[in-house]
Amino acid sequence: MTSLKGLYGKRDDGGVESNFGVDFVIHHKIPPNERPEAEAAFIRLIEAVTNVGLATEVRQGPDSSLLVFVKVASTDFLAQHVYRARLQDWLHGVRPSSPDKDVTRCLHDEPVTEAERCRLVYLILTKSNNDGGAGVTPGEGSWRFVESIFPLHNHAFNKAWIQKWSRKYLLDQRDLDEIRNKFGEDVAFYFAFVQSYFRFLLFPAAAGFAAWMLLGQFSVFYALVSCLWSVVFFEYWKKKEIDLAVNWGVRGVSNIHQQRPQFQWDYEAEDPVTGEPVKVYDPIKRIKTQLLQIPFALTCIIALGSLVVACNSLEVFINEVYTGGGKQYLAFIPTIILCSFTPIFSTILMRAAEILTQWENYENMDAHNAALIQKQFVLNFMTSYMALLFTAFVYIPFGEILLPFLSFWNKTAQFVTFSEKPLPTKEFQINPSRIRTQMFYFTVTAQIINFATEVVVPYVKRKAFDKAKEFQSKEKPSDKDHPEEAEFLQRVRRECELEAYDVSGDYREMVIQYGYLSLFSVAWPLAACCFLVNNWVELRSDAVKIAIGSRRPIPWRNDSIGPWLTAIGFLSWLGSVTSSAIVFLCRGSQGGARGTTTNITAWGVLSSVMLAEHFYFVVQMAVRHVLSKFESPGLQKERKERFLMKKKLLEETLGQDVAKKAAAPGVSEGERITREALEEEARQLSTKGHGTPEEMFWQRQRGMQDTIAVGRKMIEQVAAEGDKASSEKSVPSPKA
Amino acid sequence: MTSLKGLYGKRDDGGVESNFGVDFVIHHKIPPNERPEAEAAFIRLIEAVTNVGLATEVRQGPDSSLLVFVKVASTDFLAQHVYRARLQDWLHGVRPSSPDKDVTRCLHDEPVTEAERCRLVYLILTKSNNDGGAGVTPGEGSWRFVESIFPLHNHAFNKAWIQKWSRKYLLDQRDLDEIRNKFGEDVAFYFAFVQSYFRFLLFPAAAGFAAWMLLGQFSVFYALVSCLWSVVFFEYWKKKEIDLAVNWGVRGVSNIHQQRPQFQWDYEAEDPVTGEPVKVYDPIKRIKTQLLQIPFALTCIIALGSLVVACNSLEVFINEVYTGGGKQYLAFIPTIILCSFTPIFSTILMRAAEILTQWENYENMDAHNAALIQKQFVLNFMTSYMALLFTAFVYIPFGEILLPFLSFWNKTAQFVTFSEKPLPTKEFQINPSRIRTQMFYFTVTAQIINFATEVVVPYVKRKAFDKAKEFQSKEKPSDKDHPEEAEFLQRVRRECELEAYDVSGDYREMVIQYGYLSLFSVAWPLAACCFLVNNWVELRSDAVKIAIGSRRPIPWRNDSIGPWLTAIGFLSWLGSVTSSAIVFLCRGSQGGARGTTTNITAWGVLSSVMLAEHFYFVVQMAVRHVLSKFESPGLQKERKERFLMKKKLLEETLGQDVAKKAAAPGVSEGERITREALEEEARQLSTKGHGTPEEMFWQRQRGMQDTIAVGRKMIEQVAAEGDKASSEKSVPSPKA
Repeated sequence: MTSLKGLYGKRDDGGVESNFGVDFVIHHKIPPNERPEAEAAFIRLIEAVTNVGLATEVRQGPDSSLLVFVKVASTDFLAQHVYRARLQDWLHGVRPSSPDKDVTRCLHDEPVTEAERCRLVYLILTKSNNDGGAGVTPGEGSWRFVESIFPLHNHAFNKAWIQKWSRKYLLDQRDLDEIRNKFGEDVAFYFAFVQSYFRFLLFPAAAGFAAWMLLGQFSVFYALVSCLWSVVFFEYWKKKEIDLAVNWGVRGVSNIHQQRPQFQWDYEAEDPVTGEPVKVYDPIKRIKTQLLQIPFALTCIIALGSLVVACNSLEVFINEVYTGGGKQYLAFIPTIILCSFTPIFSTILMRAAEILTQWENYENMDAHNAALIQKQFVLNFMTSYMALLFTAFVYIPFGEILLPFLSFWNKTAQFVTFSEKPLPTKEFQINPSRIRTQMFYFTVTAQIINFATEVVVPYVKRKAFDKAKEFQSKEKPSDKDHPEEAEFLQRVRRECELEAYDVSGDYREMVIQYGYLSLFSVAWPLAACCFLVNNWVELRSDAVKIAIGSRRPIPWRNDSIGPWLTAIGFLSWLGSVTSSAIVFLCRGSQGGARGTTTNITAWGVLSSVMLAEHFYFVVQMAVRHVLSKFESPGLQKERKERFLMKKKLLEETLGQDVAKKAAAPGVSEGERITREALEEEARQLSTKGHGTPEEMFWQRQRGMQDTIAVGRKMIEQVAAEGDKASSEKSVPSPKA
Repeated sequence: MTSLKGLYGKRDDGGVESNFGVDFVIHHKIPPNERPEAEAAFIRLIEAVTNVGLATEVRQGPDSSLLVFVKVASTDFLAQHVYRARLQDWLHGVRPSSPDKDVTRCLHDEPVTEAERCRLVYLILTKSNNDGGAGVTPGEGSWRFVESIFPLHNHAFNKAWIQKWSRKYLLDQRDLDEIRNKFGEDVAFYFAFVQSYFRFLLFPAAAGFAAWMLLGQFSVFYALVSCLWSVVFFEYWKKKEIDLAVNWGVRGVSNIHQQRPQFQWDYEAEDPVTGEPVKVYDPIKRIKTQLLQIPFALTCIIALGSLVVACNSLEVFINEVYTGGGKQYLAFIPTIILCSFTPIFSTILMRAAEILTQWENYENMDAHNAALIQKQFVLNFMTSYMALLFTAFVYIPFGEILLPFLSFWNKTAQFVTFSEKPLPTKEFQINPSRIRTQMFYFTVTAQIINFATEVVVPYVKRKAFDKAKEFQSKEKPSDKDHPEEAEFLQRVRRECELEAYDVSGDYREMVIQYGYLSLFSVAWPLAACCFLVNNWVELRSDAVKIAIGSRRPIPWRNDSIGPWLTAIGFLSWLGSVTSSAIVFLCRGSQGGARGTTTNITAWGVLSSVMLAEHFYFVVQMAVRHVLSKFESPGLQKERKERFLMKKKLLEETLGQDVAKKAAAPGVSEGERITREALEEEARQLSTKGHGTPEEMFWQRQRGMQDTIAVGRKMIEQVAAEGDKASSEKSVPSPKA
């Protein structure tokens, strides 16, 4: 299924559709110059895999490599593994209730999904020997010949999936559940997020369209709607995320961490909760390393910032000041510089981010990835938004301060061209439509280019590559295959050469897009409409990318979109600040008074930013307050499960009766104090003697009736005294 | 123990020290004009109390009332109640692990504290009949003759407590635990909070003293330290609170709500978690009522704000402009107006707040109290801070705008005094020391007055009242008492007349004090030193108030300081804003240039406020990040208990072996694929026939050794081909 034809074609023969029950394929390289080592490694691999209870078959791979096919040897073996994994989940608080005691019933009540099976088999293959796995870590140390370990695509599903999605306008919960069952929660969360985001985009798209038609750029109305929208969306997603995690039974799974193989530890300590030994790296050392993030961020800002400022001012010079010849060609110079230096800087800084993150030496993959994504986000932020920030906050409101730059470029140009006389120029005038042009570029042109590089180019490239290969080697490896396997093996060899799917790239795209919307859409309110269209396509093209363009991903679990949530929160907040500032700064220059700063006061900017920011905070508090009133169905379900489970446990261990009583808020039957019991007590006391003052105190009135009788007597006395007193008062009685 | 003498005296006779085993005293009024109804109610009371398993004794109370003494009839009965309450706690998630199955062992492992016993007996008395209680609700409906239900003070403890505290400089965890065991978590949390706050006050006190000595008023350094401190304290307390709650076994107890008897419900629904029927009030209706809080807050601001502005400007007029005669007497006028109108306004608005909160119709006491406290906080905020806000933000920086007010007062004074010629005045000059004087008043004078009204006055009043009573009625009710009970009964009658202790008043005092520190201490940095001294006394005087000045409080549970936490967070944030603004606004007027606004630009104020506010947010994020790295010992303990309990359950139900395996991250032993098993499989297959392509695929290599052998052959082949290809390349071989 590495071709579009395969998706829509009618080839329903079993050979291609079925995976021969293969769970995983291990791609094992045999480099000719290291043949003996590779052969030894291969033998070790087969031994290791067989020893943990997996069956193997070996076949010829592409380009002097082997393909080791792995499957679970027996259903019972898998059942045991699934059951243990579920018990573990319960122990670590991921499942609210423990699985049924009976393994068969447990698996019957909650069938094993493809994703669960796939993940468990992958864990058996890769977990360390101490943890009961085969310890195969692709590319690491003695496993350096293992190129990759990947599951095979389920073709029947992929075909149906893409066909269904291309015919549907909106995805529903079942579509997401399907992805979760096949590709795991990590991928499913991405689709769930994009789907929610897509639905929510309808509001700013409508508001943006209305604002564009009626109010034009820089409208306060749109800025408010956008701010409100981003708060509501952010808070909604936080709730939705929890809901999804509970529904998919993965809430809290992010607390169970997958150990990083590269982790260097200082000493061992006891886990305070489970009591198991854990490896510890001195947190102070890590914080020291983390402080390097500050110079890193500064470097990013200076390097990419100065590049953007230089290229933008050069572009302004060429487009808006220079009037000489060759303008149409010269206009490309800044773009070329920007397009060639940005990737260079990015690559260097990206590499620095990776090295920094490695130095920070995190225990587990989640923390490592989060730290890496955070650094990459700084970089992405600079490359994506710097040009727009420059236009919105420097060029349009304070264009005059660019004059020294422009004269610098003027002199440089004179110097470069060896011309004696000054270059032909006109007076610099700010062009307020510049921000719109840029926004259009980022929201439309860039998204189309992105779609092309992401989906179309790889597809064409691979087609061409396949053709080239066919021509190159007439003798295909499939000639040696058994005829009934040939087609299957050829497909596996192709999947083998595909890229691994990385969901974080897709997240990055969406989050950066969210940033354009939140930060700058006030300058071009149609942005949301464009994103709406783009994301409809994006959802489907991502599905195609997974189904055709990548190896099937390992179905990792996850309970949130992780570090991207922080990024979205940050962009929402920053959006409230930039939107208000843009509105204030650019509204003035929009009309007739071009390039004047007279009507821009620092006071005005600051107060509008402050107002907007506090509007954001107040709205956030209000939305949180309102949303907190509605308990999410997921959490409710979880609490209910926990409660029922405890009740069941109580019933089992203490008998139904007690459980019922404990569940009810009170005790229905107290012990009655009977007259007999009290008399018995009194009798015992009298045989023992007088008793203490305390015993005497409680013996004065025997039981309820006594107390009532004594009380009534007292009441009468008091009343009599009262009567006496009042009669004394009214008719002074003669002295006794 | 209602006298100081009792605390320090040497009266160790059993009669006074012991409570005769009394758990609760019910004070039942018998109003002479409603004698028959009261008598019937008394009989109903005794019946109800006896029916739920409590023993009763009745004695004469003060002023034609009865005292019903209640105790638990048998230890076993109490044990059952305690056990059930603990099971319930576990069911509702308050306890991480379920209590032991054996009641006796459960109570032995975790003995019943005085507070627990007291709370449970109180619940038995007051819970509705449906919930298994006696349903006695003091003052409500048919129980309107029940004046109060209260436990008796434990004298031995109180004496030791006050003696110990008066000799100790700092309280430790054991002191807090002691309070918790005697007075419940609700009171203990107050003392824990004040104690933490007291310790933390050392930092701003030191910084304030240093700033006062070296930098004077309005120092930027002190403002930063104060902001930093408030963030650290707030975040520390949030963690500490959780820790305490876990240690006291009450974490999550705030989710178990005590039903409000006055709650009006619209319809019944099923609890989504426990499945029990719950009463529901339409939340939309409540939100509509809650919207009335906005006009309420506005009324508070306008009423109290205009009062403060009027009185302050009048005071300014008299003190700083008026130069005529009688100045020393006239200066009291604004204070008198303020002191007489503030309580009137406060009382009216406080009443309005109560009515509003009743209209909002909350299901439970916690929500009701939180809503009430929130409204009261608005009021307290206005009465406490308005005068200082006026001085800091109007009088000192923009004194000139007071001129119309001053001329208004001038004219009014002229009009009132019928004087023809204008009053003798001098030119208005701003007096920047005014804020210091006010701060001194609020931090020192007011605190002393407060101490007096809170502790000394009630004590003196009661002493005088007691004396008066002695003179009035020669025939004391104690004459009729049994001699061995007389002293005890007299003491109970006294406790009966004491006020109920309300912890929220004490909280309010502390939170308002925290506000002075956070909002205004930059104007008078010695404030923290004064508060340090004050709080040392406060802690002890509150202890004395509980021990001597009030009835023993019902030991309610709680897991946090509740709505006060929000108030402190709000004041911390506001402090960052006001401090920076005060520094900016008042620094200029501090030096020579009195009363000029030339060096105050709106830009400057806004930017300093913005800077300070963002400094606050950044520090908050950083502190939260750092604190999140250190898991609180309480939470860790809780997680551990939960984990161990689950493991124990697993061991019990599934056997030790499985539990161990599930707890360990992997499976130590997989099923080995033996040659025999595979051969058996193959034999079975061959008897069945050829099998599917899938079966064929997995049958090609039988077991590990086969796979290895086939793999090695393939490697050899590839190597041979490679050799052939390379030899072909190096020496072109003749065509075959």
